Amino acid sequence: MDGPLHGRIASDLRRRIASQELPLGAPVPSESQLCEQWNASRGPVRQALATLRAEGLIGGGRGKPPVVRSQVAPQPFETFWSFSRWAEELGRTPGQRTLEVARRPASPEAADALELEEGEPVVQLLRLRLLDGVPAMIERTTFVWPVGHLLFDFDCDSGSIYAYLSGQGVDLSMARHVIDAVAADSTDASLLTTPQGTPLLRERRRTRSLTGEALEYSDDRYRPDVVSFTIENSQQSHPALLRSPN
Amino acid sequence: MDGPLHGRIASDLRRRIASQELPLGAPVPSESQLCEQWNASRGPVRQALATLRAEGLIGGGRGKPPVVRSQVAPQPFETFWSFSRWAEELGRTPGQRTLEVARRPASPEAADALELEEGEPVVQLLRLRLLDGVPAMIERTTFVWPVGHLLFDFDCDSGSIYAYLSGQGVDLSMARHVIDAVAADSTDASLLTTPQGTPLLRERRRTRSLTGEALEYSDDRYRPDVVSFTIENSQQSHPALLRSPN
Repeated sequence: MDGPLHGRIASDLRRRIASQELPLGAPVPSESQLCEQWNASRGPVRQALATLRAEGLIGGGRGKPPVVRSQVAPQPFETFWSFSRWAEELGRTPGQRTLEVARRPASPEAADALELEEGEPVVQLLRLRLLDGVPAMIERTTFVWPVGHLLFDFDCDSGSIYAYLSGQGVDLSMARHVIDAVAADSTDASLLTTPQGTPLLRERRRTRSLTGEALEYSDDRYRPDVVSFTIENSQQSHPALLRSPN
Repeated sequence: MDGPLHGRIASDLRRRIASQELPLGAPVPSESQLCEQWNASRGPVRQALATLRAEGLIGGGRGKPPVVRSQVAPQPFETFWSFSRWAEELGRTPGQRTLEVARRPASPEAADALELEEGEPVVQLLRLRLLDGVPAMIERTTFVWPVGHLLFDFDCDSGSIYAYLSGQGVDLSMARHVIDAVAADSTDASLLTTPQGTPLLRERRRTRSLTGEALEYSDDRYRPDVVSFTIENSQQSHPALLRSPN
């Protein structure tokens, strides 16, 4: 493993928690034990423990020895936003087939979601996403014109739009995701190779810049036998949020 | 408003953020301005700002003035767990109709979820939940015997099982929620007054004590036209998690 010592200590503890070598409720090795194991001073050991505490994996303290509180670390913003990044983190292969990138006048729905006037130009994307070659999700994404026009210079079949737009300086900072269920329509059914009417897990997402400007709105429909969402919460820690393959 | 000054300052700021008087990206009033407005010393003002920061509502700092980062505070553990508490917080009326509370030998599925031997006794509950009198959700909950037997002394039509069990000293500390979609079966359809096959939003939850013991497992099915789940996340803050009425 590379990187600074505190990062290596944190990674090793995460692995031991995920593998249940350190099960839920188990005490975390003491600072002295970790210093000895890693031949390290207190600084990096304390930094590693603080990281795990911030992630909600361990809790306790204030005099009491810390214990394992959760088995999963929350997915960082870009891993939750980006299907490509998420699949790669899991060691799975993301795929995509772009069916359409179109400039259109904003429909009433798109205008409302993106806080535009009806009829202002927007860019709409329809993409099928695959996980290890299996149809997993359909993206119906609408971008405001200053962001969306960048997609006409990008091959949407080549990978992560999030990585591309971030690289172009687009500030995708905050997102709100509303999760519900819908019946597969004929487009969904044919692309996801599932009967029409099958229940799909729907995520509607609006992304804003750090200053609050609406940039993007998406209606993503997942096959629930391929992907679900997981939330871990407790009385002691912030919730952890995961998209999970089934 | 009652309570300590820092709590009143925090509540007022939450209200101003929720009403968009302080919109996303807007600077938060400075410590000096808040001290003057409330005729307060720095202590309570700083405590109020720290609370809002921990909730993810405001961010920035480290030399930069804080700005509004999110419009919703995360729901605390018990509000997300308990349908009754959630509805009450929203000013809506929760309701319930208990169809069954039964002692049974654990099925293979229940034994697996609750980490028991197959055939050990468990308590299973089937309850319809209503929001302002409208059928909203079906709970199919299984409790380990030491917890579940307490329900035979409780009127499950009277309200919150969470509040009752917590009052009995049951330690409901950590939960994992897996969210997907399923088609309404005949029981779902008749109780939720929706056609069979309608897509429902399903939340499967396992709750543990602080020491990691599995206490409860539930399969809750929501009418997605009545309730959805909302997640807010950003690059700067912990995710906020909300169950939302539609």
